[in-house]
Amino acid sequence: MEMLIRRGYFWQSFEIYGGIAGFIDYGPLGNGLRRNLEQLWRKFFVINERAIEIDTPTIGIEEVFIASGHVASFVDLAIECKSCSRVFRADHYIEEKLGIKVENDPKIIKEVIDSYNLKCECGGEFKDPKPFNLMLITTIGPGKGKRGYLRPETAQGIFISFKRLASYFRDKLPFAVAQIGRAYRNEISPRQGVIRLREFNQAELEVFVNPEEKNKHPEFDKYANTVITLIDKNDVKYEITLKDAVDKGIIQHEYLAFYIGKTQEFLIEAGINKEKIRFRQHKDDERAHYAIDCWDAEVLTSFGWIEVVGIADRTDYDLKMHSKYSGEDLSIFIPYKEPKEIERLKIIPDIRKIGPKFKDKAKKIIEILENYEVKDENIEKVVVSLNGNKIEITREYFKVKRVKEKIHGKKVIPHVIEPSFGLDRITYAILEHAFDRDIVDGEERRVLRLKRWIAPVQAAVLPLLSKDPFISKAKEIVSLLKRNGIFTEYDDSGSIGRRYRRFDEIGTPFCITVDHQTFEDDTVTIRDRDTTKQIRIKIEKLPQALKELLTSEKDISEYGPIFKEGIKS
Amino acid sequence: MEMLIRRGYFWQSFEIYGGIAGFIDYGPLGNGLRRNLEQLWRKFFVINERAIEIDTPTIGIEEVFIASGHVASFVDLAIECKSCSRVFRADHYIEEKLGIKVENDPKIIKEVIDSYNLKCECGGEFKDPKPFNLMLITTIGPGKGKRGYLRPETAQGIFISFKRLASYFRDKLPFAVAQIGRAYRNEISPRQGVIRLREFNQAELEVFVNPEEKNKHPEFDKYANTVITLIDKNDVKYEITLKDAVDKGIIQHEYLAFYIGKTQEFLIEAGINKEKIRFRQHKDDERAHYAIDCWDAEVLTSFGWIEVVGIADRTDYDLKMHSKYSGEDLSIFIPYKEPKEIERLKIIPDIRKIGPKFKDKAKKIIEILENYEVKDENIEKVVVSLNGNKIEITREYFKVKRVKEKIHGKKVIPHVIEPSFGLDRITYAILEHAFDRDIVDGEERRVLRLKRWIAPVQAAVLPLLSKDPFISKAKEIVSLLKRNGIFTEYDDSGSIGRRYRRFDEIGTPFCITVDHQTFEDDTVTIRDRDTTKQIRIKIEKLPQALKELLTSEKDISEYGPIFKEGIKS
Repeated sequence: MEMLIRRGYFWQSFEIYGGIAGFIDYGPLGNGLRRNLEQLWRKFFVINERAIEIDTPTIGIEEVFIASGHVASFVDLAIECKSCSRVFRADHYIEEKLGIKVENDPKIIKEVIDSYNLKCECGGEFKDPKPFNLMLITTIGPGKGKRGYLRPETAQGIFISFKRLASYFRDKLPFAVAQIGRAYRNEISPRQGVIRLREFNQAELEVFVNPEEKNKHPEFDKYANTVITLIDKNDVKYEITLKDAVDKGIIQHEYLAFYIGKTQEFLIEAGINKEKIRFRQHKDDERAHYAIDCWDAEVLTSFGWIEVVGIADRTDYDLKMHSKYSGEDLSIFIPYKEPKEIERLKIIPDIRKIGPKFKDKAKKIIEILENYEVKDENIEKVVVSLNGNKIEITREYFKVKRVKEKIHGKKVIPHVIEPSFGLDRITYAILEHAFDRDIVDGEERRVLRLKRWIAPVQAAVLPLLSKDPFISKAKEIVSLLKRNGIFTEYDDSGSIGRRYRRFDEIGTPFCITVDHQTFEDDTVTIRDRDTTKQIRIKIEKLPQALKELLTSEKDISEYGPIFKEGIKS
Repeated sequence: MEMLIRRGYFWQSFEIYGGIAGFIDYGPLGNGLRRNLEQLWRKFFVINERAIEIDTPTIGIEEVFIASGHVASFVDLAIECKSCSRVFRADHYIEEKLGIKVENDPKIIKEVIDSYNLKCECGGEFKDPKPFNLMLITTIGPGKGKRGYLRPETAQGIFISFKRLASYFRDKLPFAVAQIGRAYRNEISPRQGVIRLREFNQAELEVFVNPEEKNKHPEFDKYANTVITLIDKNDVKYEITLKDAVDKGIIQHEYLAFYIGKTQEFLIEAGINKEKIRFRQHKDDERAHYAIDCWDAEVLTSFGWIEVVGIADRTDYDLKMHSKYSGEDLSIFIPYKEPKEIERLKIIPDIRKIGPKFKDKAKKIIEILENYEVKDENIEKVVVSLNGNKIEITREYFKVKRVKEKIHGKKVIPHVIEPSFGLDRITYAILEHAFDRDIVDGEERRVLRLKRWIAPVQAAVLPLLSKDPFISKAKEIVSLLKRNGIFTEYDDSGSIGRRYRRFDEIGTPFCITVDHQTFEDDTVTIRDRDTTKQIRIKIEKLPQALKELLTSEKDISEYGPIFKEGIKS
């Protein structure tokens, strides 16, 4: 952590004002790393899916979160000390002090506190646990204004724009909509640095699918034989292929399984150690209010196993709720392959009687009656709403007939499968898993073994001596590489060995050195961070070689004769 | 605007709940366009400067904005109707109803309202104008919590981390720090759609410079001969080179001028029409509280001239304020080229007297005295603070001597030059300037002439007929292009002509068509959006050709024989 702060990965926000828990600043390297991670995520979950990406406000109006259930259900239990007034999140405090995992239930919490006589760190007693809503509140506009919440997840911005999004996909399921951006959670007393933030970065994909087709993902084959470590909600552990997990009913359906497989592939590609990934199913009392099933990708770090991705089956919960609260129809018309013939009851208005009786209203009434859904053949009257007036139409004005009709399809509210990524935690875990020490030239070396495509500084150009013409030639090469889209730094301070170490420590995959020979034959050396091997290469071939090296795990020896053997890798 | 909504550029947020002014959703195309704009900005202002990019929270604690002056000064005047309670921003309401521009001064506003007998739209009278702070407020943590504000600009997150940032650059000026992200402004009554948002996207560059070097920008030559349209604070208009503008004192110094030139270059590269760009200097009563000078880049749109960039000289205002409020030293030590010899007064403690008198405190007192800055040779006593106690040291315990010293440099609080970009407005202006109509094949065509490198969909692949093998071949090509990093869509619905029009309308530069000949000689056609010219090209050569075309303004005829002549461009 000390290295991460010193080298500019991240640090606590508002340091000069004493800081406040739950906020971090991404320094230049952390920002670069997270942006690269976002790009990789886009490649996996947007570009290579039938998916689009949108960007909606971080502030939402109250209506959205009443409908979504967050106003009622997005709560933690807080316990406040009677003496010092400090407030703690009850379940975390109990786990920290007593090592017990408790359910988020006020009764249970109170019982535990009483029976263990749990006190505040100051020695004071706690008041009864109280629910605390975790959304940050604000007020939009002047005066009393309008209540707004900082979004607890990016997903709601997608659900409420569902109609526009479906129309972009011409109402054809399945389709997916992604969003990358800030979300907020007003943690009661966050204590774990980067791991528990009040403002964090999410990448979410909402996959809208016909509920009848959840069992068959069109590309499931791709991950069917992927082996996964699973822990189900009964704490049973499996090492199993995704196909077997679905066949045995451990994972409910192929859509969940597909995204579990894809998530693991993504995490490994980003630099997470495969041996430190597992998928854990939420227990029944642990799931968010909107999910019927959820699998977390957990990653082992120095904080223990931490959740970095949640893959939930949200069913039609969100669309149904927004439909109910907004009055909008958020269904999709799904055509049958063949039109179906069905029998149903239909009202046949008696036009000759309705005309004279209802005069100018007759036409409208006939239309309403014809579309009225009738269940009972012996219905005695129909109440029609017309311009705010209710009109009773008794049985003498219509008949009920059993008719055969061709139905071309039906309206369906799609289900949502949601892989939701916590980018800050993944960024942190990547750094932890990349951190390594070894011995180079007899000295201990600290090295970040970041994947080449995720490293924030991809290449460093170093003049062997800190004077011209070395400096000017090195700067020329920096420009050349930047023009080619390679994130390059320049450094001329300190011995060449010290500079190599500095770039090893921040995870720069390749150092390019301008030395005496450069001025004889237009070559430079490339040094590989991991093996410390060096090759010589013509400057004109450098950009293309680096581009290929940075998007693969090729050995540098493919690009030129080895100039210096490195450590054994 | 209708087209922008229908085609998925953007739409009002929270539509299904009736919406609220000041918030928009970026649909898939708008999001793509804005992300491309951000990448272009990074290329200009981060990669090609001595600059880094960081990412800090959107929520700031109160201390930050008290120090920055926003709590006191980031206000608009609001007028509330006595009868209907609606609240308006005073200056905007007066301009809208009376066509008068007024200063933001409660007295003047009241005078205007009274003398014109200005009423609310409902007919009611207004209460006296009141200042309204434009920051959105929230509360961090449970209970009374801690007051937080949603940041009104990304800049403050940079200023308060200044020490860490300077150390990244090894305390060597000038350097620049960028941030791209959300900012918020609780507008009183926003009425202009995309133009006046409560939540918006900024890209800001804070350039830290030695105040003594503001007059000479090391790369000013690059823009010295660039011709710019300027309107100075006295409303005098100039068409002038940046060099002349600096020489004549119209623009204060080369740093401001450099970023004016660079901003114009950037806007043109992004697709803003050069004839619709001007730079207007803020009047004395118009500047933000932190700026001594500010030039806005204004762009002509259907809303009139709108500000899209502000280029301000913030001096050392922010760093000084944060230094004062936090107690941290936010200066940089700037070494002289040659050490300077100066004469100064110095206290020489009388060690033999201090020792016996002050005993265990003596050592500390001597140290303090030796470093005491003394102005008066005849000073009679020095008051020393030691562990909270004040101790008077009278003249008998020390002498004052005039000494010569070598000074190696001095502490300087850097000045800040800030180009600050409103990304939403630029995105909107790009779309307006790109919108065009022409006649193709005798029919009117709507076309978005977006720059190729900024278009959200870069290529569309269209099977001539909506059946195999056309479809499968087209999808193969989509994968090929995606793998090559080209943002590609696939479309097989409707006639080929209709599909061309659809992609013209969203600004897709190139349509690739799979036709009968594809299966004979492995070629496809490329159609250029602007000229509608078509060429044939081998599929294997397609990715490289598109990559080159998308980063340049080359004619497609360079890549293959013309298959169909288009309209005259």
